[in-house]
Parts: sequence; structure tokens; C-alpha cells
Amino acid sequence: MENLILLPSAEVALRIGRLRDAARAAGRGGALLIADNAMLYYLTGRVYSGWAYIPVDATRKPIWFVRRPVELAGEDVVEVRKPEEIPSRLEAMGQPLPEAIGLEADTLPYSTVTRLQAVFPDAGFYSASPLVAAARAVKTPMEISMMERSGVIHTAVYRRIPSLFSPGMTDFELDVAIEHVSRLEGCLGQFRIAGKSMESFMGNVLAGENADTPSPYDFALGGKGMSPSLPVGSSGEELKPGTTVSVDVNGDYTGYMTDMTRVFSYGEIPAEAKDAHECSLAIHREFRRMAVPGTKASDLYEMAARIAREAGFERYFMGHRQKAAFCGHGVGIEINETPVIAPRSRDMLQEGNAIAMEPKFVIPHVGAVGIENTYIITPSGARCITNAPEEIIPLV
Amino acid sequence: MENLILLPSAEVALRIGRLRDAARAAGRGGALLIADNAMLYYLTGRVYSGWAYIPVDATRKPIWFVRRPVELAGEDVVEVRKPEEIPSRLEAMGQPLPEAIGLEADTLPYSTVTRLQAVFPDAGFYSASPLVAAARAVKTPMEISMMERSGVIHTAVYRRIPSLFSPGMTDFELDVAIEHVSRLEGCLGQFRIAGKSMESFMGNVLAGENADTPSPYDFALGGKGMSPSLPVGSSGEELKPGTTVSVDVNGDYTGYMTDMTRVFSYGEIPAEAKDAHECSLAIHREFRRMAVPGTKASDLYEMAARIAREAGFERYFMGHRQKAAFCGHGVGIEINETPVIAPRSRDMLQEGNAIAMEPKFVIPHVGAVGIENTYIITPSGARCITNAPEEIIPLV
Repeated sequence: MENLILLPSAEVALRIGRLRDAARAAGRGGALLIADNAMLYYLTGRVYSGWAYIPVDATRKPIWFVRRPVELAGEDVVEVRKPEEIPSRLEAMGQPLPEAIGLEADTLPYSTVTRLQAVFPDAGFYSASPLVAAARAVKTPMEISMMERSGVIHTAVYRRIPSLFSPGMTDFELDVAIEHVSRLEGCLGQFRIAGKSMESFMGNVLAGENADTPSPYDFALGGKGMSPSLPVGSSGEELKPGTTVSVDVNGDYTGYMTDMTRVFSYGEIPAEAKDAHECSLAIHREFRRMAVPGTKASDLYEMAARIAREAGFERYFMGHRQKAAFCGHGVGIEINETPVIAPRSRDMLQEGNAIAMEPKFVIPHVGAVGIENTYIITPSGARCITNAPEEIIPLV
Repeated sequence: MENLILLPSAEVALRIGRLRDAARAAGRGGALLIADNAMLYYLTGRVYSGWAYIPVDATRKPIWFVRRPVELAGEDVVEVRKPEEIPSRLEAMGQPLPEAIGLEADTLPYSTVTRLQAVFPDAGFYSASPLVAAARAVKTPMEISMMERSGVIHTAVYRRIPSLFSPGMTDFELDVAIEHVSRLEGCLGQFRIAGKSMESFMGNVLAGENADTPSPYDFALGGKGMSPSLPVGSSGEELKPGTTVSVDVNGDYTGYMTDMTRVFSYGEIPAEAKDAHECSLAIHREFRRMAVPGTKASDLYEMAARIAREAGFERYFMGHRQKAAFCGHGVGIEINETPVIAPRSRDMLQEGNAIAMEPKFVIPHVGAVGIENTYIITPSGARCITNAPEEIIPLV
């Protein structure tokens, strides 16, 4: 038998405490019944099939209901086959049934939520999704150290990119070569995204004209992709001299992802592309200084948009034919966490936020420029954990 | 401007016809509002961000509401920014508002469904998920031809597996080598799974003892994986002589997946493993004959379980420490379609079903044996579209 919980008990207590604090701050009581894989991983250090029952009242114990895998054990671990068994198990353990039940409404399928609601017919229902987002937005020291480890390997992989290129390659071939090195270095491959609407394989390699192709997904940039069934990223076109290659590939080496973009040039590229890249670096410099606890996310977006506008690159900022509505986002277990750096974001920065900042520009016929770094928010500013060289790097 | 719809119009009509037939057979009226990526791809040949509005009444036209990408056009294509704009657009086009609205309750998040319900406050609501599953269970000739193309490339990749092996490799290294060849041959990488609970990167390479490690996911077999954040598949252990390697990796080369497992041996393996593999082949032979339109899916499961039992391999059938509850499943755009070959399945086979049949055995300390093929159901039996050699193939 193996223990269900893989995290140190103080770490579990810290994370559950954050979730309870978020619930109390939102005026929520009763219990949270967590079922989404990402959140089960957050609470226990492993993905399992089952439910984590977390009473908001800290005098009551969390209970771990496990459906699969078999052979897991531990304190307050209860094996069940289906969620309908939960109420009688709670009663057998002397726990009162909750007067209100919080469920992950933004991520679980409708049928799953209505089934869990029916398990507690007398309980009021509320969405746990805002509480989950609030708790996970502030990383614990252990989470930050896992992100730092991802950042170190992610950086080592990016340093090898020029050696993977040879003239005559397509963007897809370079993409696959980068994926291959990433996997050999231990990248888990999985690109965890909350919700159903965004899809990606291992990230985005955008070369030349293809960087300007609008995509359906809510990523910062697009690309045509290799098939209309996954219309994003590299498109199979041969890389052409005079263009850029923007590499934004999977940094999930530990279950916690870093998000990083770097730009490579093939042959001589126009001064306009170099200038726009410098503009992105200037935005990052200002971000490092300004992104302290208490700063409004919307102010960070306005700062980026203002620097882009003053440099004359407004029409290329965050896309050209199609623009993204944000230039940064929270990152951790999933790629789309909070806070969101966007014009109408109501998020306020907190110490321990992990933010991928990605002010980018699409220069028509040339490609995308501008970098993305993952930062940890500290009282003295944003600390970068993706420390690969930031300038445009020649492929040959 | 590019046309939203990438399929021939007769193909779109055929697919919409199947969806309407399924709705009428279930006594459903009004309209379906489709939002899931897999189903938008089915109806149009591309993934986009938006909604497909399909009146069940065939005298009314489908309308394609597009949010992103920009620059798509076509007949009855309407650009919208949010779903709340849909009713006024329908009225402007002379369409009555639906008296009932079908939404994909099993795949869309709870919040998405409740938001779409609120868009049509006067309409009754029903789950479109059973209708979607029924329509997609029977593949069109065009879909079958896309699956056949995936099967041909998938097979070519599997033939190269022995050449990728060298002694001293770990299961993960062989896994990454197979992924790399798959990607170079055009595998899209994406492993599309309906619902939220199952996760996989590019499938499953299971070697030796690790094949017996229980996993949380609802796949046929398990494995420890490289991280508790994705606990399935290869585990990083060195491959050992006297064991098997079961390869079940991504066959998505066209937007339509084939699903195939083959077994490789490293050194001499016990007779018991070879005999169990032969038992799997016997089940497949019987499946090819028996799987005609009208056959009950549960009878196919019983046939497989009976052959396994009579051969003395019941305790290894579909897993050993943990067992899967099925031995076959529908496949197409997603890996978990209908019909399901399981003891309590109420599915009945139809001409044009695509079924991945995977009678497998886990032999403790040796590994997994038994193959998986993707079949198309025809009046004269199941036609295999994953025609790689079926015997256990020595790696060296």
C-alpha cells in the first residue's frame, strides 16, 4: 500500500489553509468537494480519480475519497466506487453533512456538477472556481522551488535551439526537434490548460508569415498549425531567410510549468523587427521594477501598451491581423492561472504570484518578436526564473 | 477571407442529418447549440471558437456563430463576440427562437452550460451529449478514409520500433524515440479525449513490472508515469531482458485517430506470456467474425472474457493488480467514443462503427501482452485498419 498524500503534511495544511481562507474571504461555508485533476494534484501531490472533501471549518478534517488507483492508503483516505457513497461515509465518520457545497463550476463538466449536487440534495451550491483560483494564485515556497527547477531545465533546452537548426528545415521540423530535446531532458509533455476551449500539443513555434495567422484559441499568438483539427503553431512551411522564429514551448518538467518565449533570426532581419524586440525588453525592464505586491494587473497592461504605443508599435502589439486581449497571465500547474495582465483585469498583485509576462509583436512578413519570462512577485519586484539570453539569437 | 466550412457541402449535410436523426430518435426538438471543439470540428472540418446552431427541424438552416479566428466567411456565418448576441442575430435572420435547446452537458463546463441556458431563458434544456455520441458513433465514408490514412502511417511508424531500441535504454527513452518518429511522420500529437478526467501525453509505453502499476485513469492499462502529476505510462526504468514492451501510442495523423497496441520482447520471455498473447489473437479472430451490425457490445465483451477464462488467463485479463472495466471502445476524433465493449454496455453494433478492440493481459514481473486493433464494422465482419504484424516482435 502506498500513501495517497505525497506532500509533507505541513505543505498540505498550508494549501488547505489558503483554500479555506479564500472561502471565508468570499463568505462561503460548508465544504468544498474537489474533483478536478489539477486541484487534486495541488492538494495531495498526485493526480487520482476521486474527490477531496474539504470542510471550510478548520476544526473539521479533510477526507480523501479515492476511486482509483487501487492500493492507496493513509489517514482519512476512504475508498469509494462512486460519489453517491460519500454522504453515508461522512456520517459514519461522525461528520455532519454540509449545509453548502462548493464545486469547481468553471472546469468540471455540467453533468459532473449536477451529479455531485444531487449527492447533497439538502445543501446549497456555490462555485468553488474563484476560491480555487485565488488559493492557487499565490504559490507556496515549495511550489516556487518546483517552478524554479522547471525554469532551469527549460532554459537549458532553449540554449540548444540554434544547434538544432539546419537550412532547408521547415518550422514543423524545428518544432519537433525542440520537442524531442525537451522530452529527453525530462519534459512531461503535458500542457495543462484549465477549461475545455484551448488546446495545444507542446506549445508554439511561429516562423515568418505564419506568426500572423489568426487562430481560434485564446493564446497570445496564433499560427495555422498542421491541421484544421489543431489550428495553432507551426505550419510545415520551409524557414526563410529574413524571418524570425518565435519559440514558446512547454516548460512542464516538474508538474509545475514555466512559460518562456525566445526569438531566433534566420539571416538578416529588418530593423523594425529588432526595434520591436527592444521595445519588448524595455517593457520587461519596467515590469521587473513595477510588479510588486499591491500593483494593479490592469496598470501593468497599460504600462506595456503605453511603451508599445510610444515606440510606434501599437499596430503590432499582441498580434497584427488578430490581437490577444492580454499580455501576461498566472502560471503554475496550469498555463492559464491568475492574475491576468489585461486592460479590464481586477486582479491585484500579491507576493508569491507566478506571472508569465509576454509583450510580443507580430511584424507582417517577418514574424513574431518579443520575449516571455516567468516571474515570481516579491516585495522588491518581479524575480525572473526563466533566465535564458533575451536578445534575438541568430540560428546560423 | 477564408471559408469557415472546410468540408464538402454534401458531407456537412450528411453529418448534420445524422445529428438531427439522433435528436428525433430521442424525441428532442428545438435546436442544438454546439460549442465543444471536437464537435465543431466534426460539423465544419475545423476547430473554431464559437457556436454551431443546428435546428432539429430540417427545413431550418444551421447558422455558424464565430468568435475567433477573425477573417472567416461563408453562407450563414455570423460573427459574434459573445453568446448573448445569438438570439437577436437569429431574430434578424428570421429564425424563431428555439422552444428547447440541446447543449453538450457531458463535455462543456458547468459555467458554460448555465451561461448558454441563460441566453435562451424561455427554452427548455436537454443534454445533447447522447445525440452527439450517437451521431458520431457511425462514421461517414470520408471519416473512414481519414481513419484509414491514420492507420497506414501509424502502422509504418510501428514497423520502425525495433530499430529504435538499444540495450541499456529506459522505457521512457524508447517512448520518446517512438514519439519522435511519430511526429516526424506527421503525427499531430494531440490525444483528444472527451471529458476532463483522463489525461495522456502521447499514449502508453509499458515495460515489464511497470505494466502492473495501477493508474487513476480510465485507460485499459496503467503504468506509474514519470511524475505523480501525470501518473500513467513509462516510468524511467531501464528495460530488462525477459520482459515485454507494450506500445500503445498516438495514431492521430489526420484529426481522426487510430488506436493500436503491439508487443515487443526483450530477450526470452516466459511461455505464459506467449500463450496469453496467443489468447488475445484468438479473441481478435473471433471479434472479426462476430462483430457485425446488430451484435450486442456486451456479447463481444463476454466472448473475450470467456476465451480468456477458458485459456486460464482470467486473473490477468485487462489488468492484474487493477482491472479495466472494458476491452474495447469507439474511436474517431476522440479516443473514447461509442460503442463501448463492456459487460453492461447497452450499445448495439452498427455498420460504420470504428472500434478499438484491446484484449490485453498483464503478466506479473513480465509485462503486458495482447494487441489492439482499430476495426470498421461492415456487414461481413470487422475490417482491420491497423495492419501491423500481430505477433510478439523481438527488439533485438
